[in-house]
Amino acid sequence: MTSEKVLRVVATTDTLDTAALMADLGRRARAAARAVALAPTTRKDAALLAMADALRANAPAILAANALDLADAKAGNQTAAFIDRLMLDAARLDGVADAVAEVSGLADPVGRVTAEWTQPNGLRFERVATPLGVIAVIFESRPNVTADAGALCLKSGNAAILRAGSDSFRTSSAIAAALREGLEAAGLPADAIQLVPTRDRDAVGEILKGLSGCVDVVVPRGGKSLVARVQSDARVPVFAHLDGNCHVYVHAQADLAMARAIALNAKLRRTGVCGAAETLLVDQACAATHLGPLVIDLLEAGCAVRGDAATQAVDARVTPATEADWATEFLDRIIAVKVVAGLDEAIDHIARFGSSHTEAIVTTDQAAAARFLAEVDSAIVLHNASTQFADGGEFGFGAEIGIATGRMHARGPVGVEQLCSFKYRVHGDGQIRP
Amino acid sequence: MTSEKVLRVVATTDTLDTAALMADLGRRARAAARAVALAPTTRKDAALLAMADALRANAPAILAANALDLADAKAGNQTAAFIDRLMLDAARLDGVADAVAEVSGLADPVGRVTAEWTQPNGLRFERVATPLGVIAVIFESRPNVTADAGALCLKSGNAAILRAGSDSFRTSSAIAAALREGLEAAGLPADAIQLVPTRDRDAVGEILKGLSGCVDVVVPRGGKSLVARVQSDARVPVFAHLDGNCHVYVHAQADLAMARAIALNAKLRRTGVCGAAETLLVDQACAATHLGPLVIDLLEAGCAVRGDAATQAVDARVTPATEADWATEFLDRIIAVKVVAGLDEAIDHIARFGSSHTEAIVTTDQAAAARFLAEVDSAIVLHNASTQFADGGEFGFGAEIGIATGRMHARGPVGVEQLCSFKYRVHGDGQIRP
Repeated sequence: MTSEKVLRVVATTDTLDTAALMADLGRRARAAARAVALAPTTRKDAALLAMADALRANAPAILAANALDLADAKAGNQTAAFIDRLMLDAARLDGVADAVAEVSGLADPVGRVTAEWTQPNGLRFERVATPLGVIAVIFESRPNVTADAGALCLKSGNAAILRAGSDSFRTSSAIAAALREGLEAAGLPADAIQLVPTRDRDAVGEILKGLSGCVDVVVPRGGKSLVARVQSDARVPVFAHLDGNCHVYVHAQADLAMARAIALNAKLRRTGVCGAAETLLVDQACAATHLGPLVIDLLEAGCAVRGDAATQAVDARVTPATEADWATEFLDRIIAVKVVAGLDEAIDHIARFGSSHTEAIVTTDQAAAARFLAEVDSAIVLHNASTQFADGGEFGFGAEIGIATGRMHARGPVGVEQLCSFKYRVHGDGQIRP
Repeated sequence: MTSEKVLRVVATTDTLDTAALMADLGRRARAAARAVALAPTTRKDAALLAMADALRANAPAILAANALDLADAKAGNQTAAFIDRLMLDAARLDGVADAVAEVSGLADPVGRVTAEWTQPNGLRFERVATPLGVIAVIFESRPNVTADAGALCLKSGNAAILRAGSDSFRTSSAIAAALREGLEAAGLPADAIQLVPTRDRDAVGEILKGLSGCVDVVVPRGGKSLVARVQSDARVPVFAHLDGNCHVYVHAQADLAMARAIALNAKLRRTGVCGAAETLLVDQACAATHLGPLVIDLLEAGCAVRGDAATQAVDARVTPATEADWATEFLDRIIAVKVVAGLDEAIDHIARFGSSHTEAIVTTDQAAAARFLAEVDSAIVLHNASTQFADGGEFGFGAEIGIATGRMHARGPVGVEQLCSFKYRVHGDGQIRP
């Protein structure tokens, strides 16, 4: 595969009617979904390894496509951070291939018997995991999402429709072509992974309408405006989170050293991830001893602190927090800090301002921890651990296609198990219903 | 509670602006949902028993309201079947109360730990069942749905918004008032079960739009036009099935006596349920011995048979099946019968014409059964048992709010477990992420 070939394909398809093109893509995905749903584990894993091989074999073409995307991005005066997200080199591409190969090592989620029981009439029931069908992933500049999402969808027996950001379109197209080579090498239909072959923005609208029943779920991967558009416009289910406004609550009975370590880590280990803490709540009962060290730690680490009156009193560098700060996902070296009267106020504050993503309590009081974990309605609730563990890999899921904050079907890190549905198998020996 | 009081409430609320009324209903439901989500099992069960008591105590008012609904139905020349569905008497109302009381005996689905594991860093993960939130149930003439749905939503820790059919509006209102009495007697918010207090059809549209995020899922209970409208218009998830075009496939290795018993039962035990068989597929390899007895049984039992050429050759009473018949849910004493070349054609026929609801294979060949159960993409697949077992009670779920054929979240009979979401509880001792 040469980069010229990729470009020629793009040029051809760009001239087609987008609605017709997408309808065809949907039909192909649905047909391929049936084949991959029934593919045995060994074949799916062989395909994943072949996909990894093809990514390495096609490295020159992929890196050449990436160079063109990068040149456009630089000409368009994109930020350094943007260009870094877009950039692939030999080492990064090797990492992308490794990640695909690693998915072959995960347990096959399809066919797992998740419940089994026998009724008095002798009927034996099994609830068995089955693929969801066709998963559409809409993403922005990170071209590795093409490979990650394609691999996770295949492992879970689903067909994937991938919509790359315009800026990474050539890179993603080259990666997708390699993935399809791998699928075919293993005897699976190439259409199990399709990249939308046009930059036309109408393609996203067609996906959100569901391609006449050919899309079962949409997963947006990217910034807030993308997620918001998908959540507002999609006529099919969406696995996503709009915000990760995560909280750390330092309870009255918190160990100070532990609270300091967790608060620093939750806020600053990486500030750009959705599990980063954005608000620190400190219990009034321990504020005299705990608030100062917690705030000074953050300030000394270069984090801006926006606080309520009690927090402002700790240090002149603390600026006043506004009402909007409690609801803000800073994704930066900024934290909002508030003293709360107790567990009830902490829970109420999170219910009012949180985004149902990830919240932690630090305490040695087991009863308080139990109440916090029960009453805080978030996808992930932690006791004495950093919110930065909000990640499929840290959960042991191997990889995730995203983190969901909805309550329907998938919640928290969405790994291959959550990309499955289920059905009931019923085994009889002639039972009829009286 | 008197029936006059019910009627007065109705008259008042009918004059309000429906959009504003529904928005208020949604906000009340969301507030009540938080309270019932955290209610302990004992309190929910006490409420269910109090609801059953209140239904019995308010029997005169409920039956008086029902008499008014019945009078209107008769004046409107409704069918006898319709009037029977609408009619309550003391015995039926007692059955409704019993059903509510029985829900108190089900295991509490909320708080179940459905997975638990520990990562190498010592973090202990639990996946715990939590309520979905607010469930809207839209139904037609059967007033008992008010009580059944309210009870199942409460048991699963959800708030319910119930929309009764216009024809059962007074009966349903009286039943809902009794349920709310029971909730309050147990110290739970009455707003955990709200009946839409207007007959205005715009209320359904408001529910389908989701009441500004205050509805998490919609469950339509009723005829095909209701389900189709809800599926087409809802902007929130829907648990439903449009069709139950169920199949019985008599495989080459089927025991004839078993096949006859299952085919008769699957078609005729009750023809109006969604798990009733609508098409019988008979394998060519056993047609010479099996097709005749199967068809004659059905004819003798008063069932019209529409068949392909081979089936028509069995008996002069068999009429030709049209292409449309394969796709039809008759819900009547009619069956379509076709001879298929083998397992592959049976699976393909079901994929093409089926509704992903419930299908059965009759065979002594375990490998054929395993393939059928794996490859047929229906919510329920049975081996050597009647399709009429497609029922939450028969599954041991105790009661169901409906049967879903979608692949998202709930599938098959939707009992209290499927009315739950989940969250992750993570227990640490100070872990931070490296």
